[in-house]
Amino acid sequence: MLAPGSVIGILGGGQLGRMLSVAASRLGYRTHIFEPAAHPPAGQVSERVTTADYLDVAALTAFAKSVDVITFEFENVPAEALDLVEAITPIRPGRNALAVSQDRIVEKDFLTGLGLATAPYAAVEDAASLIDALDRIGRPAILKTRRFGYDGKGQVRLTEASDPGKAMADVKGAPSVLEGFVDFDFEVSVIGARSLDGAVVCFDPGENVHRDGILHTTTIPARLTTAQRMDAVLAAGKILNTLDYVGVMGIEFFVTGGGLVVNEIAPRVHNSGHWTQNGCVIDQFEQHVRAVAGWPLGDGTRHSNVVMTNLIGEEVLDAETLSRDMDVGLHLYGKAEARPGRKMGHVNRITGAA
Amino acid sequence: MLAPGSVIGILGGGQLGRMLSVAASRLGYRTHIFEPAAHPPAGQVSERVTTADYLDVAALTAFAKSVDVITFEFENVPAEALDLVEAITPIRPGRNALAVSQDRIVEKDFLTGLGLATAPYAAVEDAASLIDALDRIGRPAILKTRRFGYDGKGQVRLTEASDPGKAMADVKGAPSVLEGFVDFDFEVSVIGARSLDGAVVCFDPGENVHRDGILHTTTIPARLTTAQRMDAVLAAGKILNTLDYVGVMGIEFFVTGGGLVVNEIAPRVHNSGHWTQNGCVIDQFEQHVRAVAGWPLGDGTRHSNVVMTNLIGEEVLDAETLSRDMDVGLHLYGKAEARPGRKMGHVNRITGAA
Repeated sequence: MLAPGSVIGILGGGQLGRMLSVAASRLGYRTHIFEPAAHPPAGQVSERVTTADYLDVAALTAFAKSVDVITFEFENVPAEALDLVEAITPIRPGRNALAVSQDRIVEKDFLTGLGLATAPYAAVEDAASLIDALDRIGRPAILKTRRFGYDGKGQVRLTEASDPGKAMADVKGAPSVLEGFVDFDFEVSVIGARSLDGAVVCFDPGENVHRDGILHTTTIPARLTTAQRMDAVLAAGKILNTLDYVGVMGIEFFVTGGGLVVNEIAPRVHNSGHWTQNGCVIDQFEQHVRAVAGWPLGDGTRHSNVVMTNLIGEEVLDAETLSRDMDVGLHLYGKAEARPGRKMGHVNRITGAA
Repeated sequence: MLAPGSVIGILGGGQLGRMLSVAASRLGYRTHIFEPAAHPPAGQVSERVTTADYLDVAALTAFAKSVDVITFEFENVPAEALDLVEAITPIRPGRNALAVSQDRIVEKDFLTGLGLATAPYAAVEDAASLIDALDRIGRPAILKTRRFGYDGKGQVRLTEASDPGKAMADVKGAPSVLEGFVDFDFEVSVIGARSLDGAVVCFDPGENVHRDGILHTTTIPARLTTAQRMDAVLAAGKILNTLDYVGVMGIEFFVTGGGLVVNEIAPRVHNSGHWTQNGCVIDQFEQHVRAVAGWPLGDGTRHSNVVMTNLIGEEVLDAETLSRDMDVGLHLYGKAEARPGRKMGHVNRITGAA
C-alpha cells in the first residue's frame, strides 16, 4: 500500500483529475497535476500543478520525480511522454491498456480476440479503402479516426448519399476505421476496477443516453436482465484481467436482441460512473485511487438508485435551481467559461433506496 | 449568490478547512487557506495557501483582498485579525457568533437569556472566587478557562478532595468558569444551519460518545423521543436566529430526565456532523458553503443511518483494515504525524437505510 502522505501524479487536469484529486485526499494522499492548459480545474483541489506541454522533457522529468505513482485522466497522452515518466515512476493503469484504447483498430482486434462482439469494422487508409470497406460493411456506417477521438469528435456518418471522398476529407485523411451500425435497444456501461493484486469488481451497469454525441444521462439501475448483467460483468472481467489492468475502466456496451456488443473502452474513470459519488460509499474515483495505491477495492455496493445528468455549456446556469431539489447532488467543475458542448458539471439525482 | 469561480477564504487549515475546501469545489468555488502552521491539511486540496501568523497585518490584508467571502474552521481567531479582514471582506458567520462562543461565560449568559437550560455556572477569577463558586454549585464540578478551550484542554475536574488553589494553578490562573455537573443520560448534537436569507434547517441529532475528552463516536439516529428531537431543533433555531447567523453551527446538548441542557455551541462545522458525508446528499460542509455563498440550503434529509468513529493518534493505522468493510466510508486528513490525541481521520459506517 502506498504510504499515507504519498503523492499521486495525475496526467491531465480536467474534471476527472479534479474528482480523482478529491478522492485521493480522502485516503490521505496528496496530488500533483500535470496539464498543458493553464488553470486546470483539477489544480483547484490539488497541492501542486505543473503547467507544461506533454513534450516538455524537463517538466515531465521533474513531475515524475516529484510523485510516487502516476495515473491519468486522459488516455491520449503522447507515447513519448509516457516513455519518459515511466522510466522514473510507475504508471497505473499500465501502458498496454493505453496502447489498446488509443487506437480503435487495435481495440477492436483486442476485443474480438477475447471472443467479445463488436460492431463490424474495417481499417480505412484512403478513399479507395473506404469504398472497399463500405462494400463489405454496408451503409449507414460511421467513419472514425483511429486515434484521439472523444465525445463524437473525429466522426463522420455515411449514409447512401454520402461521398466517400468528402468523408475522408472530413477526417482530414487520418487513418480511420469504418464501423457498421449496430441495431441496439440501448447503451449501458460498466465501471470495472482491478486491484494491484488482481481482484476485479464492478459497479452495477448504468444505462446511458447521449445527446449530440455527448453523454446526457446515466440511469442506475439499467433495464438489463440478470443474464445480461452477468454477461456485462464477465466481459469486463475478461478485459481487465487480460490487460493485467490496475485501476478503473469504463466499458460501453450496446444492448441488442442478440446479446451485448462492446462499443468502446476507456482506461480511466468515466463520465458514466459519476453516479457512484452519490449512490455508493466508495465511488469510482476513490475506487481508482484505491487500485492505483494498492488498497482493497470497494465491492461496488450502492445504497441508492441514481440518475446522473451532465450539465453541458449553459445548462450549468441551472445549477442554483437544481440545488433546490434535496435529492440532487451537485458537482461543478470550476471551469471559467461555459462554452457550447463543454462539460461544466453534473447532477446526481437520488431516485430511491437501492 | 456568490458567482461560480469566486474564492472563499478560510481561516484555519485543519481537517475542517480541508473538508470545507472539497465541498466548495463541488459548488464550483476556489478556496484560499490562511493558517499559521506550515503544510496545513486543507492546503492539499486548496488552490492557495497563506502561511502566516494571525497577527501578520500584511498577510491578512493580502488574504482578505484575494477572496470574495471569508469563513473559518477555527473559532479562536484573534479579534484583531477579524477586525482587519472584516474591514475588507465580509466574514460569515458574523462576529457576534464568534464573540458569544469564544467566551464560556458570555455563551452561557446568551443561552440562559434565550430561556435555554445550561449547567449551573459561575465566573471564577482566582482561588477565592473559585471557593465561593464551589459553595454555590457544589462538587463535583469542572473548572474551564473562559477562552480557547477545546477537546478537554484547559479543563480541571474538582471533586471533594481537590484543592481550589491547585485547580487555579492548573488553568494557569486564567479567567475561568466553574460548571456544575449535569446528571445526563447521554449527549446529542444538532448540526444546524442558517442561510443568508434567514432559513433555518437542521440535520437529525446525533448521539455522541466521548473518550478522554475527545469525541469518539456519533450515532445517527440518536435515542431521542419525538418531543426531545423537536426541542433540540427549536433550541437550535432560536440560537441561530438570535445571532442572525449564516453558516453551520454545532450545538451539543445533554439529555436529562428534566429535558435538554445546552452544553456548548461551536460556530462552525463540527466533528459530530461528519456523518453527513456518507449519510446525506448535501453534507454539513456543503451546507456551510451553501450558506456562506448565498445558496438555498439542503433540508437535512439523510438516506442512511451512520455511526461515525474518530481515528485518534495511531488508530489511523487501522485504516487499511477498516477499508475492507464495504459499509465504511474512510476520511483521512493527510496529517504527517500520528501524535497521541491528534484527530487523524474518521470513518462513517453505514448501518442501514434511513
